[in-house]
Amino acid sequence: MSDNNTSTKFRRPPKTQAADIVQDSPAIILVEPQMAENIGMVARAMLNCALTDLRLVSPRDKWPNPRAYKTASGADVVIENAKIFETTADAIADLTQVYATTARARDMTKDVVTPRAAAAEMHTFIDQGTQCGVLFGREAVGLHNDDVALADSLINVPLNPAFSSLNLAQAVLLLGYEWFQDTVERPDTVDEVRLDTRRANKQELQNLFEHFEHELDNCGFLGYADKRPKMVRNLRNMLNRARMTEQEVRTFRGIISGLVNGRRV
Amino acid sequence: MSDNNTSTKFRRPPKTQAADIVQDSPAIILVEPQMAENIGMVARAMLNCALTDLRLVSPRDKWPNPRAYKTASGADVVIENAKIFETTADAIADLTQVYATTARARDMTKDVVTPRAAAAEMHTFIDQGTQCGVLFGREAVGLHNDDVALADSLINVPLNPAFSSLNLAQAVLLLGYEWFQDTVERPDTVDEVRLDTRRANKQELQNLFEHFEHELDNCGFLGYADKRPKMVRNLRNMLNRARMTEQEVRTFRGIISGLVNGRRV
Repeated sequence: MSDNNTSTKFRRPPKTQAADIVQDSPAIILVEPQMAENIGMVARAMLNCALTDLRLVSPRDKWPNPRAYKTASGADVVIENAKIFETTADAIADLTQVYATTARARDMTKDVVTPRAAAAEMHTFIDQGTQCGVLFGREAVGLHNDDVALADSLINVPLNPAFSSLNLAQAVLLLGYEWFQDTVERPDTVDEVRLDTRRANKQELQNLFEHFEHELDNCGFLGYADKRPKMVRNLRNMLNRARMTEQEVRTFRGIISGLVNGRRV
Repeated sequence: MSDNNTSTKFRRPPKTQAADIVQDSPAIILVEPQMAENIGMVARAMLNCALTDLRLVSPRDKWPNPRAYKTASGADVVIENAKIFETTADAIADLTQVYATTARARDMTKDVVTPRAAAAEMHTFIDQGTQCGVLFGREAVGLHNDDVALADSLINVPLNPAFSSLNLAQAVLLLGYEWFQDTVERPDTVDEVRLDTRRANKQELQNLFEHFEHELDNCGFLGYADKRPKMVRNLRNMLNRARMTEQEVRTFRGIISGLVNGRRV
C-alpha cells in the first residue's frame, strides 16, 4: 500500500501523462481553499487516481505555494498545472456536467448521488465528449448555496452519520478512487500471486495424497478401519483447499519423508 | 462533505455505539506505526466508517498520546479503546480471517483482492460469526514478509500505477469506506459449508505452526539456516490458505505427532 508497484490489469492503458489525462477526466474544483497544505494533499490524492485537472477558486494562501509542494509528496505535475479563478462560475465555464459535494441537505431540488454513481455517470458523460467537474467547498464550512446552485447534482458520501466529517483531501480521494475504480477491470476475486511456479495438477496431488496416506497408515494414524475413509476424505479436502503449487507439493512430500526418515536417525 | 448531517438511507440502522460496532466489524491493526499523529488520523477515518476496533503493534511513540487525540478530530472513542500488542501474532490471535494491505507483489502464493471484494467477503464472514481484521504496515516501508505470511489474503488498492503511494490514514479510509458502502449488494456465499466445527483462529494456527516447525527442525528438514525463514513463511502461507477448521488443526497436529512418534515403534 505504501509503495509504487501494482500488478493491476487495466481495461484501458494507464495514463500518466498530464496532457492525456486532462482531456478525459473530471476537473477537481476547490472553492476558496484556506490552507496551501490542504491543496497539496488534494493534489496527491488526485494523482493517486490519475486526475490532474485542478482548479482553485480564490485560494486564501498565495499561489503557487511551497507548502503545497511539500504535502503533495511528488504530485508536482498537478500543482504546476493548477489554474486559478476568481469565481466558481469562471472555474466551471468550460464544463458541462458539474457536481457539488455536500453533506448537508440543501433547500434545493437537485439529484443527490453517491461517489460511485457519480463516477459511473461521469465516465459515460466523458466518453460522449461532455466535460465534467466536481466542486469541493472550503475546509470548515463547505460550499455556499450560491456555489451549489451552479451544479447539476449533489454528491453525498455515505458515511457514519454520527461522524461523517472528512478533510478536504479525503473527500477528493474518495471521489477520485471511485472514478479510478470505474476505469479498472475489476475481477471480483483474484488473481493469485504465483511467481516461478504453477498450481499442482491433479496427478501431482493424487501422488501426494497416496504418499501421505501410506505414511499415515504406517505410523498407525489411520488405523481404525471404520473411520479411515472419512478421515482420508477430510485430509484430501483440506489439502485441496490449500491450492498448492507444484513446488509446494514437492516440499510437502519432502516434509513427510523428513518426518518419517527421522526415525532412522 | 465537511459537516455532520446526511440524508442517506441505510438498510441497517446506523450503529454509533462503540460496544455495538466492535462486535461486528473488522479490526484495524497498525503494525509498528511511527507517528502518533498518523494513528489519530487513522482513528478519524475509522470512525467515519463506523469502525472502532483499533489495534497497535509496538507503536514507536508512547501511548496513549495527546498528538493522536489532536489529529483524531473527535474520534476519541477509537483512541481510548485502542489495544496495544507486542507482536502481530498477538494482535490477531482472536481473529480468524486476516488481510494484509500491500502494494508490492510478494513472493508468496496468496489471494489478492480489491478493497471492494475484501469488504464484501468480510461482511459475509462476520455475518457467519467469523472475526476479521486488516493489517496495515508502517508508514514508509509497509509490512514485513513475516507479517504478510500471517494473513489469509492480500488487499491491493487499484490506483494510478505511476503514483500509488497512499498515506496510512488514506489507506484505512479506502478500506473502511468500502466496508461501509457494502450495506446493499453482497455475494450470497463465500465460504464452504462447515458443519459442527468452526475455522481455527490465529492462536490455534500459531500453535500448529510452532509445533510443525519444531518437529521439522528436529528431523533436520529446516536445517539450512539461510533458507529457514523463507521456508517457514512458505509453509505458513500454504497452511493459511487451507483455511483449516479447529478440528483439522487438531487432526494435523495429531498427524505430526503420529509421524514423529512412529520413530519409537
